[in-house]
This record gives sequence, C-alpha cells and structure tokens, in this order.
Amino acid sequence: MAKPSLITLPSKMNNQDRKEWVDDAVDRLIETWQIPQIQGILKLKESVTYSFSRGGKRFRPVLSLLLAESFAVHPQKVLPWALAVEMIHTYSLIHDDLPCMDNDDFRRGEPTNHKVFGETTALLSGDALLTQAFGHLAVSYRDEAALGLKLIALLSEASGIFGMVGGQAIDLEFQKQKPSLEELKLMHEMKTGALIRVSVEGAAIICGLSGAKIQTCRQLGEAIGLAFQIKDDLLDAAEKTEVGSFPAVVGLQQTKEILSDLTLQAKKLLSQLGISEGPLIELVQSNFDREK
Amino acid sequence: MAKPSLITLPSKMNNQDRKEWVDDAVDRLIETWQIPQIQGILKLKESVTYSFSRGGKRFRPVLSLLLAESFAVHPQKVLPWALAVEMIHTYSLIHDDLPCMDNDDFRRGEPTNHKVFGETTALLSGDALLTQAFGHLAVSYRDEAALGLKLIALLSEASGIFGMVGGQAIDLEFQKQKPSLEELKLMHEMKTGALIRVSVEGAAIICGLSGAKIQTCRQLGEAIGLAFQIKDDLLDAAEKTEVGSFPAVVGLQQTKEILSDLTLQAKKLLSQLGISEGPLIELVQSNFDREK
Repeated sequence: MAKPSLITLPSKMNNQDRKEWVDDAVDRLIETWQIPQIQGILKLKESVTYSFSRGGKRFRPVLSLLLAESFAVHPQKVLPWALAVEMIHTYSLIHDDLPCMDNDDFRRGEPTNHKVFGETTALLSGDALLTQAFGHLAVSYRDEAALGLKLIALLSEASGIFGMVGGQAIDLEFQKQKPSLEELKLMHEMKTGALIRVSVEGAAIICGLSGAKIQTCRQLGEAIGLAFQIKDDLLDAAEKTEVGSFPAVVGLQQTKEILSDLTLQAKKLLSQLGISEGPLIELVQSNFDREK
Repeated sequence: MAKPSLITLPSKMNNQDRKEWVDDAVDRLIETWQIPQIQGILKLKESVTYSFSRGGKRFRPVLSLLLAESFAVHPQKVLPWALAVEMIHTYSLIHDDLPCMDNDDFRRGEPTNHKVFGETTALLSGDALLTQAFGHLAVSYRDEAALGLKLIALLSEASGIFGMVGGQAIDLEFQKQKPSLEELKLMHEMKTGALIRVSVEGAAIICGLSGAKIQTCRQLGEAIGLAFQIKDDLLDAAEKTEVGSFPAVVGLQQTKEILSDLTLQAKKLLSQLGISEGPLIELVQSNFDREK
C-alpha cells in the first residue's frame, strides 16, 4: 500500500499503518541530518540509521499516536515527541546489546549494531541518538517553548538516573540477589515502564488535556508498561524462569493475577478518560491475550 | 579558604575561586538527586559522583562565568548552563576512557571510572550524565522557556552527531589515514571545539547580548577551542607526534603560526566586544604561553 501522507485521517489507520507512518517519519527525519561528507561521520550516520530506521513494532510511538487520536488530535502534533521517545528507546537497545552489557549478537533476527559497525561506533551511535532526542524536541516545539521544555524535563527524568538508566543499574544487582516483589516492580517501572508511561503522558500533555486527565494518562501508561513486562515474563516462563522475573519472585499464579489486575485497571483508567472502545482498549486486551 | 557563597561578587574571584565555586555547585546539585535507596542505583550515583564531582580545571564552566562577568551578569545566571556543559564533558570522558574507545586506566592521576566501578556501570554513568544535562537545563530555565529551549538546541547540536560525537567518529578514521589540514581542523572544531565554543556562545545568549555580539562570542569560543587544542598538540609534540595532530599534518613551524594567528584573532574578537583587559584576555595569553 502507499504510505499514508501526513494529512491521512487517523481514524482510517490500523496499528500496522501507524507503524509504517512512524517508519516513514524516521526515514524523513534522518534525511534532514546534514553532516560533513567525510569518513567516520558517514559511518556513524549509517550505524545510527541501521538501528533507528529498522525499528520493531514502534510500540511507544504508536501509543502516543493512539492517545492523540483518542482525543481527536492529529498525530502530526505528537510526532516529534513520539520520535524523541523512539530515539531514546533505540539508543538504549544499542547500548544494552554491547559486550559490557548483555553482549547480544542478534536483535530482531539481524546482527546487533556493534556486530556490524564495531563496538566504538555502536557506543557513539547510542550517544548520538540520545543527544539528538533532546535537540529534536527543542527544535520541533520552539513555537510552544513552555510545552517543549516540559516535555524535555519529562523525557530526561524518564530516561536517566531517575528512570530507564537507573532501572538498568538496579537490574544489574538482581543477578546477584533475588529481589522482593516491591523491588522488582520498582525496577520494571524504571527500566522499561517509565518510557512507556511517558509515551502516553507526554502525548496527553501535548493534546492539552486537563491536569487530572494527564494524571490518569500517566497511571494508564504505567499500567500498560507493567502489564507488557509481566506478559513477557509469563511467556518467557514457558521456556525458562529468569531470576529477576515476576514468576521467579511470586510464582506463576500470582503473576497471572497481577496481569489480570493491571489489565482491569488500564480499562478502568481508559473508561475514566471516556474511552470505552477502539484501538487503545484493543491494545490492552490483546496484550492480555497474546501468545508471543 | 571558605567556599564563596552564591552572592560573592564576581570581581573578587580568580580562576581558582571560580573552579571551586563550580566544584561546590556540582556537589550541591548531586545532593538534590533523590534516588531510591536500593543497590545498583546507589552504585550508579556513586559512579556518576566519582567523575562529576572531582572535575579537572572546570575550563568550560569557568569560560561561561568569565563571559558573564565581562558583561556584569551574575555568574549564578549562567551556572545551570555551565553545569550542563560540564555534565556533557564529563560523560564524554567516561565513555572515551572505556576499553572499546581509548582504553585508559588513569585520568588526572586517578583510576578511570570503569576501573573503579566496572564497564557496565561506567557506560550507564555516562548515559545518565548525558541525559541529566538536558533535564537540568529544562528545569533550571523553566521561567524563561524560549531561552531554555534555545540552549538545549545549542547543546544538543554541539555535543551530538553534528558536534562532539561526530568529531569523535571522524577522529577514529584518522588512525587509518592521515588527514588534510582542513579535515583536521573540522575534526577538532567538532570533537573538542564545539563544546568550548558553546560555553562562550551559550553564556552570551543567557546574558542577553545582541545577535551580532553573540556571533562574535561564537567566533571567540571557536578560536579559544582551537587554540587550546593546537597548544596541546605542540606540547605533546615535544614527546611524541600523534598521527592526527597539527604538527604531523603541517609541521611544527606552521602549527606555531596557526596558534599565533588564533591568539591574535581571539584578542581582536575580545576587543570587538569591548574587552581589552581582565581574565578573558589573560586566559587567551596564558594558553599561548603555557608550558604544560
């Protein structure tokens, strides 16, 4: 199918369309990056493109688009935010795969960034994407400076020592000592939850929702983030129970109950936002039902 | 001596006082970071503190302070900018020292971050500082949102693929093939020059200087950045001539002439700004004269 243009009406999109719309926006963004035509930096851009352009499900950007659509806001308005969050997510994958972290050779069936471009370039690629995320927000929202600044503060908090990076640091210790349920929740809320949460929360702020509704969206994002993590843990447990996973800490039965509770809670929060049907409800339910 | 308080008059400070004032501000900033009291993240904060708290000369922050003082603006006004630039500088040192980059065991006579805390934590520390730099700007300049956004765009451009990180990527290739003078200048302008440039340029923006004066400050920052790099190259050449250094590319004599030209140019730019004496003039001259 033809790529939906920027003025495609959101109501006509499904999640595959949304993913492709984001893929397309990523490619167009990278094309705007004017760099000196000299060895080294050309390789760096190729390495950044390798990971950023071939994203997976674009789960976080799609969440931002869905939130906007639910409030009849054109996805174009939340796109810079969605792309910034995806840059942070992409950098975190590149750094996570490095030998000193998870030492992974493959991601999504393809060689990891450092396997193709070498460790040094992969490290720099991650640094470049992380840096660019904030610059992209600053430039994109320059006509709404207060909004732009609020988003940058939100993204920094969710992705740095108070969020994703802090969560990764906590996770490292779980390899050494089995955590409590509270510690495990905290780790996931920070490591993967925070970025998923702000995909929803940031979009809510951009859509101009009331403070109370933004708060509800924040809780919704938290519930979705944790529910996805727990479902992943449950599916993984069919093969192997990881030390720092919910089934290992509270057992299979209680893990399933937590997932049920979170799914119910997400639907309640959606209902409070006046959303009782449509793609956000489907997304929450399909996570509960999914088999992979 | 007692640490200067925030209301110390700038005219009474020398560069050692300024450095200590910055050291003190760094420590107070780190103290405000409220993190969960749990293993892993405590270690991460310790690792961040290890590198950020024991800075070297604080050359970039001191430049920002000096620029502000030259225009009778209280250093407190440029402090958040100075600290953000220093966070970027510190993260770049931590990542540069990693085994996949320069593989350095010591920095400033102390073990490098990864030698003390391990590679994984050092990688995360760098990521955390880089992320925090932008969050710190967003929070600090929230009452002047347009200014804050401009500074974030400037810092991102100077430190990412268009600046420092891009310069590092170019430098990697110079190990393989000897660069031309133009390529060498470009690499240094990006790798180390950009961050020094924006220490001056960002401070000029914060001080509310005219567009023309900001442009002059930008050129001044560029000249100072390159002059410091070339002086380092000259001092290094006494022991060993690096492949990608000015003496290796254009010879000792021409390198000395470039340094003379840049020093003269910096003084002319200062004169255009109405500065004919004081610590900025001294800083430019002392770089020309220094023996280490």
